[in-house]
Amino acid sequence: MIAGRIRHTVTFTLAHPEGSAPERDFLEAAGQLGAIPGVEAFELLAQVSPKNPYRFGLSMEFADQAAYDGYNEHPDHVHFVQRRWLAEVSNFLELDYAAQ
Amino acid sequence: MIAGRIRHTVTFTLAHPEGSAPERDFLEAAGQLGAIPGVEAFELLAQVSPKNPYRFGLSMEFADQAAYDGYNEHPDHVHFVQRRWLAEVSNFLELDYAAQ
Repeated sequence: MIAGRIRHTVTFTLAHPEGSAPERDFLEAAGQLGAIPGVEAFELLAQVSPKNPYRFGLSMEFADQAAYDGYNEHPDHVHFVQRRWLAEVSNFLELDYAAQ
Repeated sequence: MIAGRIRHTVTFTLAHPEGSAPERDFLEAAGQLGAIPGVEAFELLAQVSPKNPYRFGLSMEFADQAAYDGYNEHPDHVHFVQRRWLAEVSNFLELDYAAQ
């Protein structure tokens, strides 16, 4: 990665049954986070290793910490966390990567 | 991601002191995993979120499960796990991602 750039990732499991309509609805809403200004290389992913309890992943990149801060503070992100994430995610882990 | 493709990631912490020569030596050895056939988009990264206990990350992609299996079974990978990883890594988590 280019120095200063940040890859923000979060892996998570939902409270909803696998393949259910509420699961699909949550993932569709999560996918809209990619439209927030400053978000680059946005991906909604399946977590497929059996060596951990998580089922999904989000990955996105920011040019710098200011872009990352702008995302965190953006009303669409704040609203998503408060209205959807806190209520529907049962387990998660955030990992952020930068150039070593 | 393209269907069938797998992004293998592992985040980890070393038993060595931060910034020490043994730490640098381990990271240099880990960086050589990127030369194993089938490994694409190899990255050795710093983990920078304060929301977890990990300090480093490895990320690599495989075209398919066969390429991933080939990496896991490659003598250079097996040797690295047995001689370095098991002795020097104090905490880790593997996460593998595919198209959702």
